[in-house]
Amino acid sequence: MSGTVGGRLVEALRREGVRHVFAVPGDYVLGLAARVERDLALVTMRDEQGAGFAADASARLTGLGCALVTYGVGGLKLVNAAAQAWAERSPLVIVSGAPGVAERRGNPLLHHRVKGFDTQRRVMDEVCAHSAVLDDPDRAPAQIAEALAVARRRMRPVYLEVPRDVERAPAPALPGPGPPAPGPDAAALEEALEEVAGLIRAAERPVMVAGVGVARLGLADQVRTLAAHLGMPIATTLLGKSAVPEDVAGVAGVYAGGMGRPEVARLVEGADLLLMLGAELTDLNTGLFTARIDPARVVAAGIEDLHVRRHAYPAVGVAAVVEGLLGRGLPARPAGPGTAAGPAPAFDPRPGAPLRAERLFACVGSRVTDRLTVIAEAGDALFGAADLPVGEGGFLGAAYYASLGFAVPAAIGAGLARPGRRPLVLVGDGAFQMTGIELSSAPAAGVAPVVVVVDNGGYATERPMIDGRFNDVPAWDHPGLVAAIGAGWGVTCDTEDAFCRALDEALADGSRPRLVAGRIPPDDISPALRRLTGALARRVR
Amino acid sequence: MSGTVGGRLVEALRREGVRHVFAVPGDYVLGLAARVERDLALVTMRDEQGAGFAADASARLTGLGCALVTYGVGGLKLVNAAAQAWAERSPLVIVSGAPGVAERRGNPLLHHRVKGFDTQRRVMDEVCAHSAVLDDPDRAPAQIAEALAVARRRMRPVYLEVPRDVERAPAPALPGPGPPAPGPDAAALEEALEEVAGLIRAAERPVMVAGVGVARLGLADQVRTLAAHLGMPIATTLLGKSAVPEDVAGVAGVYAGGMGRPEVARLVEGADLLLMLGAELTDLNTGLFTARIDPARVVAAGIEDLHVRRHAYPAVGVAAVVEGLLGRGLPARPAGPGTAAGPAPAFDPRPGAPLRAERLFACVGSRVTDRLTVIAEAGDALFGAADLPVGEGGFLGAAYYASLGFAVPAAIGAGLARPGRRPLVLVGDGAFQMTGIELSSAPAAGVAPVVVVVDNGGYATERPMIDGRFNDVPAWDHPGLVAAIGAGWGVTCDTEDAFCRALDEALADGSRPRLVAGRIPPDDISPALRRLTGALARRVR
Repeated sequence: MSGTVGGRLVEALRREGVRHVFAVPGDYVLGLAARVERDLALVTMRDEQGAGFAADASARLTGLGCALVTYGVGGLKLVNAAAQAWAERSPLVIVSGAPGVAERRGNPLLHHRVKGFDTQRRVMDEVCAHSAVLDDPDRAPAQIAEALAVARRRMRPVYLEVPRDVERAPAPALPGPGPPAPGPDAAALEEALEEVAGLIRAAERPVMVAGVGVARLGLADQVRTLAAHLGMPIATTLLGKSAVPEDVAGVAGVYAGGMGRPEVARLVEGADLLLMLGAELTDLNTGLFTARIDPARVVAAGIEDLHVRRHAYPAVGVAAVVEGLLGRGLPARPAGPGTAAGPAPAFDPRPGAPLRAERLFACVGSRVTDRLTVIAEAGDALFGAADLPVGEGGFLGAAYYASLGFAVPAAIGAGLARPGRRPLVLVGDGAFQMTGIELSSAPAAGVAPVVVVVDNGGYATERPMIDGRFNDVPAWDHPGLVAAIGAGWGVTCDTEDAFCRALDEALADGSRPRLVAGRIPPDDISPALRRLTGALARRVR
Repeated sequence: MSGTVGGRLVEALRREGVRHVFAVPGDYVLGLAARVERDLALVTMRDEQGAGFAADASARLTGLGCALVTYGVGGLKLVNAAAQAWAERSPLVIVSGAPGVAERRGNPLLHHRVKGFDTQRRVMDEVCAHSAVLDDPDRAPAQIAEALAVARRRMRPVYLEVPRDVERAPAPALPGPGPPAPGPDAAALEEALEEVAGLIRAAERPVMVAGVGVARLGLADQVRTLAAHLGMPIATTLLGKSAVPEDVAGVAGVYAGGMGRPEVARLVEGADLLLMLGAELTDLNTGLFTARIDPARVVAAGIEDLHVRRHAYPAVGVAAVVEGLLGRGLPARPAGPGTAAGPAPAFDPRPGAPLRAERLFACVGSRVTDRLTVIAEAGDALFGAADLPVGEGGFLGAAYYASLGFAVPAAIGAGLARPGRRPLVLVGDGAFQMTGIELSSAPAAGVAPVVVVVDNGGYATERPMIDGRFNDVPAWDHPGLVAAIGAGWGVTCDTEDAFCRALDEALADGSRPRLVAGRIPPDDISPALRRLTGALARRVR
């Protein structure tokens, strides 16, 4: 049976390290769902949006994640998740069932069809790096292998469509692992390394910025070794937060222009050479372009190419640059005057004091350990979390594309990707209303996240821009909700000490999902968002 | 202020009869959201998926519906809803905010961006009939008018993208209503009518099938007049259910091949002429092609063109055909031997009898009145509801594209579209887990649906095809859920009498949303689905 197209797909996913497939079944994909349930592990989610985000999180943490859905009504619910995976460099593999090749003859009006049978693929081509319809069993194994290779190499989403009759057709063996992807042209790489090495030697106050590419490509150890050798302090970015652990010496924390902590901005903007590794100059990474960085002092090595000052080396990626610089025998230098984020300060709750955003984040920060993976939802949960020093446990956030609804389903993907670490979610009440019910998928998946709901009655990041009733969300009884959907136990807190105690209890009980809602005033925002809103308001008005 | 692009958009929507705009705000659309909240009516939903479905329902019932979302993370969550609107002929207007024209210069990495600034529009072009980016204030009013006209004429979704700086730019007046859309060529129409009239005169057992186009174009009265004059019984389709009221003489109810009631199949398949008005031969409309219809006996007038036997008249639409036949002085005929669906039989619950699907639908059917709009979710809720005779209150169901998650948000759109009628939702527990929390949006919208959850522990339509744990969904405490999200009051019932009593209480309390969950065995399905599953299983295996 494994010698079928579906069997080859499962085999290829397994070979590439995929251990869990996140799914919502539907009639065009039932055969494949049954096969994955039997031969790999199928994790069902409540809605395709949740499956997409869970698989995205898994992809970010394991190097390849997979979502399995049905045609049309399944696949087209995943467009937003795929777009986020594209924008934030996540190797997400979307597998969609589809009407059988035989069923399509005569162009009938089969259910879930839109303009034509190729509509879904055409849509996916707009947000994915690669797509293939497996309509020929003989070619399918090669198509599968190629798609997974593209996802890994480009750190982008790919799309595979499996007609349901082809799924069970016999197929040849998968191609062997094949030669590694062609590296950059050796001469171009040598020229680039020579130039970058020269800039490093000449610099007096060089600073390294470790971005999302460092996390995706698993370069953290090499980057830290390089920085230590060269005496360069390291900053991270919002999207690349925890690309290197932030609670160790030499790591300054998140640089985000005028939004980040001022001492990190002074460090980065005062550098005479910025070695940006896997970091992208997005608006959120640069505090909505409040960053003051002179391009003449920047070396930016991305996942796929290198920019030095104002010129580019195509196909020279960050992995080759880091490896090349390590092997280059650059002179060692003592650590310069950096600024370390350091561990979070201890937090002493003031009994009975009404909870405020700043204190909520401070309390959470004081509880972060390496046994937790912090997942922050876009909005003030993300901005507030930017200041928390996160160590080996890691951090996930949709910090560029910034789709709401990511964090709770991502916790399920993250929990399965790293069984030794518990997901700690920070999410606003507005975003929680989008996908919070995916917590209901956690118990069957064997994941027990801790979810902190920042409950401020609406979309707090929007209020300083333009406010109206449209920024309000209905009040939910969060503990009642998690009880109703069988997702553990929750509590709502209004004071510092109640919140802190509830969080400690939640962290102590790893047996089930736990939710702690912290109620704060609607106009109360994190220190980071306070720094940011001035810039945002100027941009909108 | 109304002389701005945003003002013209609101003015145009209002002129076309749009009274409510369904939205999730986001920073690129805040200005427009504030304007709609002030000058029209903004109904906020919990997630963009819900906004899309609510607007789709509004479009189906009022002739034009509008969803308002932000760029990327908003618009790309609407692709599935737009695809459904395309497939099921719903005039849905999607308005998306977007980065300002000035912001886009230099191609910066603004948040919510994917491959390029045109990604979202390119995606929407795959699932919409028309799109426009309002990047020039001078042209915007004409672009707006054209988009709304296309939506109305083609009964398809359209997409408008509004850069946030253009939204507040001064704009010229809207063009006047303009000449009506060009009708079909007069000679082609005359030729078509002559041929169809000849077929009608020659037929001995003609039957009319009223489909979705009759509902969308508001042709019900004309169609009934024509049928009565010609003595033709009328059947409807699954997608066009309630295109004409089913509880009156001469209306046989839903024809759906081997899935529908056998007496309707005998009537339709025994006809020597089928006059199909606004009906499409989709797989679900024909019981997965179990219909036995001879194309040589079919006249099919669609929204945009006419097919007579095996030839076509392009641009001759059903509205012109119906009007032309009415004006043609065809000889009146007495009603032939039809089969009337008639009113639902009374339902006597058996005290203490465990609830079963067949009895659940029978109970609901006995309670349907013209003061209720019945909304059935795809799956067994839809199949079970197909047999219910629905009158003037109307019926909504995603009966071709068949996306799960439609029914609950659709109830909010429907309730606002028809304030005198209360939405009665039939939804499976699996689909309810996708978007059921949109009930939380109902109280602020002033809508109080009655939601019947058919609680069978999973995806019942899939189990007869291929079963596995993937078809199970977690058990929810539905009453606890609605209480937690501030969406009225609910109850779960296991017996016939408890269910019937709870439904009666819910129908008697119009002050708030009411939920009645009817628990039935996992393998228990409606009579209609029992008829259908044979065909489905044969197709999948």
